[in-house]
Amino acid sequence: MTSYKSRRAGLVEWAGENNLEAFIITSEVNLRYLTGFTGEGLGAISADQAMVVTDRRYEVEAAGQLSDCEVLFAEEGYLQELALYLGKLGKSRVGFESRHLTYASFQKLGELAGDVELVPTEQVIEKCRAVKDEREITAIRQAAEAIDQALQAVLGELVVGVSERELALRLREEVMQAGGDDVSFDPVVAFAEHSAAAHAVASARELAPGDIVLIDAGAKVEDYCSDMTRTVIAGEPDEKFAEVYQIVRGAQQAAMAAIGPGVQAAEVDAIAREVIDASPYRGRFGHSLGHGVGLEVHELPRLGKRSEDVLAAGQVVTNEPGIYLSDWGGVRLEELLVITEGGAEPLTKTPYLEL
Amino acid sequence: MTSYKSRRAGLVEWAGENNLEAFIITSEVNLRYLTGFTGEGLGAISADQAMVVTDRRYEVEAAGQLSDCEVLFAEEGYLQELALYLGKLGKSRVGFESRHLTYASFQKLGELAGDVELVPTEQVIEKCRAVKDEREITAIRQAAEAIDQALQAVLGELVVGVSERELALRLREEVMQAGGDDVSFDPVVAFAEHSAAAHAVASARELAPGDIVLIDAGAKVEDYCSDMTRTVIAGEPDEKFAEVYQIVRGAQQAAMAAIGPGVQAAEVDAIAREVIDASPYRGRFGHSLGHGVGLEVHELPRLGKRSEDVLAAGQVVTNEPGIYLSDWGGVRLEELLVITEGGAEPLTKTPYLEL
Repeated sequence: MTSYKSRRAGLVEWAGENNLEAFIITSEVNLRYLTGFTGEGLGAISADQAMVVTDRRYEVEAAGQLSDCEVLFAEEGYLQELALYLGKLGKSRVGFESRHLTYASFQKLGELAGDVELVPTEQVIEKCRAVKDEREITAIRQAAEAIDQALQAVLGELVVGVSERELALRLREEVMQAGGDDVSFDPVVAFAEHSAAAHAVASARELAPGDIVLIDAGAKVEDYCSDMTRTVIAGEPDEKFAEVYQIVRGAQQAAMAAIGPGVQAAEVDAIAREVIDASPYRGRFGHSLGHGVGLEVHELPRLGKRSEDVLAAGQVVTNEPGIYLSDWGGVRLEELLVITEGGAEPLTKTPYLEL
Repeated sequence: MTSYKSRRAGLVEWAGENNLEAFIITSEVNLRYLTGFTGEGLGAISADQAMVVTDRRYEVEAAGQLSDCEVLFAEEGYLQELALYLGKLGKSRVGFESRHLTYASFQKLGELAGDVELVPTEQVIEKCRAVKDEREITAIRQAAEAIDQALQAVLGELVVGVSERELALRLREEVMQAGGDDVSFDPVVAFAEHSAAAHAVASARELAPGDIVLIDAGAKVEDYCSDMTRTVIAGEPDEKFAEVYQIVRGAQQAAMAAIGPGVQAAEVDAIAREVIDASPYRGRFGHSLGHGVGLEVHELPRLGKRSEDVLAAGQVVTNEPGIYLSDWGGVRLEELLVITEGGAEPLTKTPYLEL
């Protein structure tokens, strides 16, 4: 049984337990996960059948990827086609993804699909996606290798005068050189105090001697993402940089030691946070410790204060503590890792600074 | 009165006419349009006040961009903060953007905001955005100049062996060289029969002599987009290419001659389509003629068969007919233009081939 079929079988089982006769997929990432289809569209899964609505632009993809699904090419709109299909299917209680359907589309589908009772669900497929199979881990491993290679190439090009944007472009180029299909998000390259902004965007700013350089980037291989961050300094690290760096690295190592199957994600966040909060930089770690990575750069589980997720073998997550000082800059160190039966294995391997 | 204030005044007037006491903005692009805010967040506009909910990551942007709005920094979530605000505001009928709120968020907000009646609206702000003011047109003009410059640079680099991806990267680089802040979407570079795919993505494919080269790309300046397409050939155009090119160019020119204020958008699409359908390539123009461009690459008005939009001065739209033959390739020519009182003025100016 292909992984797509078994994933759909799992969803059908869940639907049955929840008294649903069919399940509508409107998240394209979830559709990709359940069918392998990479075009635009939506789907419906039931015990009898898997169906994808798309349009003629994706005829080639549909023919190649959806051999075991019914494919409908919409003339008018996807929702119209879906409503007709649901009518023929004759199921009365149908689940939908309440985080991936707008209020307008919900209303429209309700009108079009008359007798069908649309039942909201939340993150059913996202929870399945959190645990990866071997094939998924292989793709993420390759994406991690691609960003490792790209980052190491670009870290060798930190010459005074180069701009954040130029380095961001170089990362794109090197990701593809290294076998990545693309970057997994717009690379963040932030110099000096820019590195303190949690949402930094690469700008025309040019590198000056002594600048902090924070690079947060990832690659994509077969639609699977990697994500990593390193922070270095253009020149000799001063005492403050070395101090901050070592605290962040210590927080990351403490978290890494705690990560393993069965562990509360919130507890891992707390362990890293305590290291920073016990330092002179208390309160300067202003985001969550990490997140799952897969078909999306940010997915389940969440490693944060309020997370109720429990870690499990096969999850791929980031471990990324940071310290940010608005008038100085920031240091973030982000590792991508896969949780194993015995603990965790790093997937990104660019060396850390020895300070 | 700044343009933001007057845009909000227009929305408040519309809300009043529709018996709404306040209006919730959950589209970030619409929030940018109404307030100038470039961070993440959502907003609420009423006759009394404009309010933006964001979080501490956007403190700098909020301070600089939202001097005439109330700003709330959410600790828990944006919706929680919005619900509290609506409670204090004491308005009972509040409009929301039904295409920009998920079913899950609608339900959550409804629960949190108890007494407030949430009233769905569709594309109210999108319709305002379709007509640009002078400042917006200036930004789009600059974005058009940037993509013109970038495209002309890259068209000079069509050497055998260069890959689609390499040219896509070069476009990014040249857009920034030319004063663009970024590309407005991942550039499409498609060689040979790839150019027949309406959703082509730049791949590792290398240029061979005689290949068709289709480039569809745009730049961003101050958050405003440009969008243009040119199709050329690597080497001497053969008869078929020349024939297809001339038909597409003829369709584009016929549409251009028809474009002006008060004209039905569907009619302009029909005029271009008739030129192609009167040729040997009947039915091979498989998409709409064009779309509005502004803060988003695709916005109102729609120039297509089923469009009910009427063109108006100040709208910025694309005019992009094409002919696609799956085993040969495609030719698309896309011009960005602004509709004027007297007709239309092209904003993108890269010359067409003389065949």
